Amino acid sequence: MNFASDNAYAAHPAVMAALARANSGAMMGYGADPVTAEAEAAMRDLLDAPDAVVRFVATGTAANALVCAQLSPAFGRIYCHEDAHIETSECAAPEFFSHGAKLMTLPGSGGKLLPAVLSNAIRIGAGGGLNGGRNAMVSITNATEWGTVYTADDVAALASVAHEAGLPLHMDGARFANAVASLGCSAADVTWRAGVDALCFGGTKNGAMAAEAVIFFDPARAEAFDYRRKQSGHVFSKSRFLAAQMLALASDGLWLTLADAANAKARTLAAAVEAGGGQLLQPVQSNAVFATVPAETHARARAAGAVYHLWPDKSAEGMDPVPLRLVCAWDSPDEDVEALAAILRG
Amino acid sequence: MNFASDNAYAAHPAVMAALARANSGAMMGYGADPVTAEAEAAMRDLLDAPDAVVRFVATGTAANALVCAQLSPAFGRIYCHEDAHIETSECAAPEFFSHGAKLMTLPGSGGKLLPAVLSNAIRIGAGGGLNGGRNAMVSITNATEWGTVYTADDVAALASVAHEAGLPLHMDGARFANAVASLGCSAADVTWRAGVDALCFGGTKNGAMAAEAVIFFDPARAEAFDYRRKQSGHVFSKSRFLAAQMLALASDGLWLTLADAANAKARTLAAAVEAGGGQLLQPVQSNAVFATVPAETHARARAAGAVYHLWPDKSAEGMDPVPLRLVCAWDSPDEDVEALAAILRG
Amino acid sequence: MNFASDNAYAAHPAVMAALARANSGAMMGYGADPVTAEAEAAMRDLLDAPDAVVRFVATGTAANALVCAQLSPAFGRIYCHEDAHIETSECAAPEFFSHGAKLMTLPGSGGKLLPAVLSNAIRIGAGGGLNGGRNAMVSITNATEWGTVYTADDVAALASVAHEAGLPLHMDGARFANAVASLGCSAADVTWRAGVDALCFGGTKNGAMAAEAVIFFDPARAEAFDYRRKQSGHVFSKSRFLAAQMLALASDGLWLTLADAANAKARTLAAAVEAGGGQLLQPVQSNAVFATVPAETHARARAAGAVYHLWPDKSAEGMDPVPLRLVCAWDSPDEDVEALAAILRG
Amino acid sequence: MNFASDNAYAAHPAVMAALARANSGAMMGYGADPVTAEAEAAMRDLLDAPDAVVRFVATGTAANALVCAQLSPAFGRIYCHEDAHIETSECAAPEFFSHGAKLMTLPGSGGKLLPAVLSNAIRIGAGGGLNGGRNAMVSITNATEWGTVYTADDVAALASVAHEAGLPLHMDGARFANAVASLGCSAADVTWRAGVDALCFGGTKNGAMAAEAVIFFDPARAEAFDYRRKQSGHVFSKSRFLAAQMLALASDGLWLTLADAANAKARTLAAAVEAGGGQLLQPVQSNAVFATVPAETHARARAAGAVYHLWPDKSAEGMDPVPLRLVCAWDSPDEDVEALAAILRG
Repeated sequence: MNFASDNAYAAHPAVMAALARANSGAMMGYGADPVTAEAEAAMRDLLDAPDAVVRFVATGTAANALVCAQLSPAFGRIYCHEDAHIETSECAAPEFFSHGAKLMTLPGSGGKLLPAVLSNAIRIGAGGGLNGGRNAMVSITNATEWGTVYTADDVAALASVAHEAGLPLHMDGARFANAVASLGCSAADVTWRAGVDALCFGGTKNGAMAAEAVIFFDPARAEAFDYRRKQSGHVFSKSRFLAAQMLALASDGLWLTLADAANAKARTLAAAVEAGGGQLLQPVQSNAVFATVPAETHARARAAGAVYHLWPDKSAEGMDPVPLRLVCAWDSPDEDVEALAAILRG
Repeated sequence: MNFASDNAYAAHPAVMAALARANSGAMMGYGADPVTAEAEAAMRDLLDAPDAVVRFVATGTAANALVCAQLSPAFGRIYCHEDAHIETSECAAPEFFSHGAKLMTLPGSGGKLLPAVLSNAIRIGAGGGLNGGRNAMVSITNATEWGTVYTADDVAALASVAHEAGLPLHMDGARFANAVASLGCSAADVTWRAGVDALCFGGTKNGAMAAEAVIFFDPARAEAFDYRRKQSGHVFSKSRFLAAQMLALASDGLWLTLADAANAKARTLAAAVEAGGGQLLQPVQSNAVFATVPAETHARARAAGAVYHLWPDKSAEGMDPVPLRLVCAWDSPDEDVEALAAILRG
Repeated sequence: MNFASDNAYAAHPAVMAALARANSGAMMGYGADPVTAEAEAAMRDLLDAPDAVVRFVATGTAANALVCAQLSPAFGRIYCHEDAHIETSECAAPEFFSHGAKLMTLPGSGGKLLPAVLSNAIRIGAGGGLNGGRNAMVSITNATEWGTVYTADDVAALASVAHEAGLPLHMDGARFANAVASLGCSAADVTWRAGVDALCFGGTKNGAMAAEAVIFFDPARAEAFDYRRKQSGHVFSKSRFLAAQMLALASDGLWLTLADAANAKARTLAAAVEAGGGQLLQPVQSNAVFATVPAETHARARAAGAVYHLWPDKSAEGMDPVPLRLVCAWDSPDEDVEALAAILRG
Repeated sequence: MNFASDNAYAAHPAVMAALARANSGAMMGYGADPVTAEAEAAMRDLLDAPDAVVRFVATGTAANALVCAQLSPAFGRIYCHEDAHIETSECAAPEFFSHGAKLMTLPGSGGKLLPAVLSNAIRIGAGGGLNGGRNAMVSITNATEWGTVYTADDVAALASVAHEAGLPLHMDGARFANAVASLGCSAADVTWRAGVDALCFGGTKNGAMAAEAVIFFDPARAEAFDYRRKQSGHVFSKSRFLAAQMLALASDGLWLTLADAANAKARTLAAAVEAGGGQLLQPVQSNAVFATVPAETHARARAAGAVYHLWPDKSAEGMDPVPLRLVCAWDSPDEDVEALAAILRG
């Protein structure tokens, strides 16, 4: 009963099959292979973005930090939510890759930036002269770190604020599939059509072994990106094995099928929380549940072997009710979901 | 009538005289000269710290950022106040010099960190695993960015929290002289005797042209610091000219005399603010006044040619009352102080 | 007929099987899984180094650059051969990860450093004061970029020079298996027993998809390495999939079996070169052949579809004889090897 | 009798006078003062470059490294002479400021790059793909580290090679005044008119305390440079004191007068070397003499108290003849020059 993270789960059989298919004989390295070409094209199709530049890396931290370094100078200000993964969970990788860019963290309910808050922060930043660094970019996460989603309109409103100030908009989509599945819109609608300039499209949590796509919708923004990726050790010599994973997810809508499955499991747990007198801390719009549950319920869950994190404070043990996070993957076993749901229902 | 900053003012005649004295014939460069040796010794004497390593640089940003890089790895967490100069006003120099260290900003009235807040933040940081980076150091500013001062006891309480977690304590003393003059204690009492491990002792705002001292009380903490200073372009070939400035300030207690003068001018303005129906936002414990004054008073001050910043929001023009910052230097003309005081009194 | 690089080839079936085996249900991420533990132990066994710290990353550039950053400060001097991969082929990744360390390149026949040359360079570096930076480490490649190998005695002689100066010795073992297979010694003999402090053990060119092991023989040298790996985006959330690859190679001596196969193919080509009037530029001691062949032979090889690089100057087309590099993988088809050999024989 | 370096000498009285003049009352900080404006204008006049962007810093290492970071990305290749100051004597500051740019060092007699050698290196760099990084800029030193000078034609030939490849040309002019005085041309002729894009104009060795000018002839190349300077701690709050020094040197041709004086002293020593059976290693075209002298002469010089460096190997003590470097400043006492000359003559 592991609900600690979606990255605790496996790679989908179609991903494994794609790796096996790619594993045939000699191909030129460093991305000059047909699998990479096919996968890049598949991503462009998926996003309805025929001119986009698509590159693959193995980790979400690499994807995000490379985009930050690409879009911000060392003296740049990167606006993001105070709970953004790039702020809390990447060991200062954006600062490292960019050589010093400063993450300007902003509050916002449910992990979502508010246009007015963003606008005001950008205005203050613009007025700070050399002291505060130069406004560089805006980063949002979709689905957010609190399991909520930005709609296309939400994104457009933030993009409008960013673009008015001349700043590009980055979307950390470690759980992009879960967001799109939840929204029921197209990938294009919630990204470039809404004003997103760079997207990190997560594969790992979606059913890959270790694969993420970095997409720049305007090729000009990708200038020299390949050098940056190389210099940070994120170009695979046998690139086909990165590409094959994303190709599998992009094929036949597998990415959405898997995200749908994960989201549904989360909804099951959410309903159980509420039925059992717990309280949802956020609307459950993707594959994670943030809730408080009675301490007694928590004790029974732990006794039954359920693994999950207390959240946001891992030291909340002993509180009543207990705040926690439950994350579902495409392959969280249905019997585990049902077993935990039964406990949650009380 | 310039009250914009203490760095808008001049160098003291004794500093100029010391430069002239140092300007005689050939001396070996890069610090291997007798003036540097004498100045380093004078700083050690001033601090009653015979084993301390003393080095000179030309700017406060260099001093602070070099210490951050010395005491924090690229993946370090540096705890400081949310209004700390290193956070708000150094264009992400600490992040640049350290290659990514993250400033963990904390709230606190009057620009001062609170031990309990610091302790809790350090505890959370320690529990974050790789995600959040590694706890590295604590930085405080004395006098603070809000013109208040940490007493020796205040410092000791924070040092105790830091040291218990194995973290060194840095003091940004851009206005260290103002703090010591205000406290009436010794320089040692409020630094190493209270647990400070590294001190940036500001000369520029105290009456130098451009000179700051970086002091490591434990020589082991200064290991390889000279390489770091060199690699960042902060070793002067004609080092005697940096040293001579600090030597002048350290001689005959000039540093305290000048700080006393600046502090007294600030107290005069503070009294005038209160007499005129304005309100002090912070106790005036050094050479700066943070206050709100009636818009009408502000208008008359501006009309009289007074230069100062609205604070903290430079766009506060139009508010009533108006929040502002008045900074005095050792040589802010008494007639200017008196003229502004008269306006403030209404 | 692809002899461009060993990274143009596939992953071994045992590697694929290990990935499939690892792909079962939920495991905690970021290295806290049993596959990672087993693979780390297997590497320690292979190296007869029970105390070594073993970590996995996906690319050789990441492995090397992380070790450089771990063993050298920003102001460090890293001594290596002028043809070292870290110098010529990693897009300045060591400089980027270390934030400025300088690669001090030295000449040496066959890609091998000479103790006397190294010793002299270290002496000069030590005498340069701040100007030249501080001596930090020595890096060698085994097998070298010219297909030759360092024997255990060779390594010991260089280690002795390095250690005498207090510098650690790094071995870039992108083709470590080929070197050990060629030498017929144990992995321990040519590494820690000979004085190597940090080893990058290459999996990718040896039959993995994308996997390398970083090994610090003295755990103290690995201090905080995990933060460094995390901050650069090289910690996999589903770490088991990196580990499984190395585990497969380390099991049943597969790493040596595959390296032996690749080396044998290279020897076949080498013999053909000589039989056909070409000239070996270096002794063929691993899986690569560096040679000049008659232009006419080259033309026939190209006509037959052979893919390889002219070397070291890719623009040598038109020369007679033509300098080239032929690299064999464990799975370079025997019929391709034989076909090219036939052409080379003339 | 100090001939160790020109930075072992003093600041000119006119520089001291300018500092005293600038030291009057309040001026806004960070460059927003009239002295800075006047000095920037004076430099533009001196260079006959009305559109140039001029900025002041305190050290030559800062000036050079900031220009490298401005003109090269982290993955850039910077072409320079193997004896360039940026390569040998700045503790890897260019690599640090640029976050990894690689200095591609080239041979050349007398410290001068040759167009054909440069052209070939750039061609090879362009062909290296991601592996070798991206060609970024060319840097030359005038006067060179061997005391020779590039003529306007020399510079134009190198600029032509650089520009053809789309690369900007940087001139490290730590001893620019000595070069121009020696050439008898205008500052414009040997810089922007010959194709130089960025110039570091040295003040420190020319008679300042600590001041250098960074000049970008095309303002577009200076984009965001002020942020870079700020983030590295090289913006002075009391900027007038940097500016005043350069203003003094730029006034009434003082910079050339002082350089002429230093050059003449070097010519005196050079003639003495030759008269005494020593040998000049390079033509003496600026203020330094590189020569071998009989060991017996060297012994007498040392006995007489002469201070200078053996060169290039400081451990050459004991050789016969002895290679050495003699550097003259504007204020090397004539009696010292004559005394050493007498010894050199034998």
